[in-house]
Amino acid sequence: MSNPLFNASLLESLDFSDSEGIHFNPTITLKNPGNALTIRPLQRDDYDHGYYEVLRQLTTVGEPSLEDFQTRFDEMLACAGTYYVIVVEDTNTKQVVASCSLVIEKKFIRQCTKRGRIEDVVVDGSCRGKQLGKLLVLTAKKLARKLECYKLTLECEKDKIPFYEKFGFRNNECFYMVQRF
Amino acid sequence: MSNPLFNASLLESLDFSDSEGIHFNPTITLKNPGNALTIRPLQRDDYDHGYYEVLRQLTTVGEPSLEDFQTRFDEMLACAGTYYVIVVEDTNTKQVVASCSLVIEKKFIRQCTKRGRIEDVVVDGSCRGKQLGKLLVLTAKKLARKLECYKLTLECEKDKIPFYEKFGFRNNECFYMVQRF
Ligand SMILES: CC(C)(COP(=O)(O)OP(=O)(O)OC[C@H]1O[C@@H](n2cnc3c(N)ncnc32)[C@H](O)[C@@H]1OP(=O)(O)O)[C@@H](O)C(=O)NCCC(=O)NCCS
Ligand SMILES: CC(C)(COP(=O)(O)OP(=O)(O)OC[C@H]1O[C@@H](n2cnc3c(N)ncnc32)[C@H](O)[C@@H]1OP(=O)(O)O)[C@@H](O)C(=O)NCCC(=O)NCCS
Repeated sequence: MSNPLFNASLLESLDFSDSEGIHFNPTITLKNPGNALTIRPLQRDDYDHGYYEVLRQLTTVGEPSLEDFQTRFDEMLACAGTYYVIVVEDTNTKQVVASCSLVIEKKFIRQCTKRGRIEDVVVDGSCRGKQLGKLLVLTAKKLARKLECYKLTLECEKDKIPFYEKFGFRNNECFYMVQRF
Repeated sequence: MSNPLFNASLLESLDFSDSEGIHFNPTITLKNPGNALTIRPLQRDDYDHGYYEVLRQLTTVGEPSLEDFQTRFDEMLACAGTYYVIVVEDTNTKQVVASCSLVIEKKFIRQCTKRGRIEDVVVDGSCRGKQLGKLLVLTAKKLARKLECYKLTLECEKDKIPFYEKFGFRNNECFYMVQRF
């Protein structure tokens, strides 16, 4: 297998017998995400497997070269225990069709705890409505707990609040402040 | 100087001739933060300089040992270009009296951009109202721009919104979702 961003056995170790209130119909799991689909870590050769074509459906991606992608990939890999980009691959076409990132922040507070963030959730237009969004977010949540995060957060647009509430996220705790440069 | 979390010359390179609308009275800057005070990166020996006594005024810190602190410090150091914990030291007592963290997330989107987050802003009770909070947040903002972040974000309680608005932060863009484990 091509160089993964994190150890694939971490995903395999997650227990999907409990879907934690998330309703899957038909039933899909990490090991059986659907016909001709597989869930795995992002790989160093995914630039050539349409990774940016998927990200482009989320936001501006620019025109990064293969080298830009691989340099960034290697920087993430060097930050041990930080970047967990989980993707769904179509095993027929070998193309990436969905992605979700779990990013870990190491902290000094709370007995040197860790905090997780869900970033850049996107499913290719051709694969929406197949429960892959739900499966990826549930996977990221299970992984965050496995990695001993004390909390998991994300930001989203208003219309996505009901989607994330299914996973136990609430939006009444803090105020999110942003500025763009 | 003891082992710093990041290169101190990065702070020295920041231009404080423009205070970006932040009103300092009396005038203080990164180089002159006030009588017997200095701004610098967190150091590997700051466990013995009261770092946790300051953090404890922000939230739960637990009872981390010196080794816990240093292990976490080394993990942060190993994540090159990620953790920028900026502290104020009282040069008489050698104690840390304020802290503010800038945490960088490396991304694939937007031409492999970076995103900054301000975390864990706290000023020791004995030093509040000396403009150190403002100075640290302005320093973190200037550093985020220097490091080429495309945006800078934070979460805060409702009563702190006016404080952060002074720096150009706005809270109308996204919804912040959280769950605790
Ligand atoms: C949001 C997104 C990731 C959902 O992925 P998906 O695989 O199509 O969603 P799923 O099939 O897993 O369905 C998720 C559930 O949320 C609902 N849902 C789907 N898209 C939704 C949307 N845009 N807003 C709110 N709810 C949505 C579905 O009805 C489904 O609910 P159900 O299980 O009760 O029937 C996908 O629409 C997408 O990539 N959108 C563009 C990028 C984006 O907005 N990302 C989210 C950033 S926070
Ligand atoms: C919030 C905190 C960092 C401010 O630090 P400080 O050095 O005392 O603040 P400054 O002297 O730089 O003053 C900042 C400005 O914000 C105002 N301010 C100070 N504390 C404030 C508070 N708790 N809420 C809202 N505004 C506040 C001040 O009036 C001042 O405004 P001005 O310049 O217009 O007079 C400090 O009170 C603290 O450590 N609090 C406990 C931890 C905490 O809540 N951290 C913030 C988490 S988001």
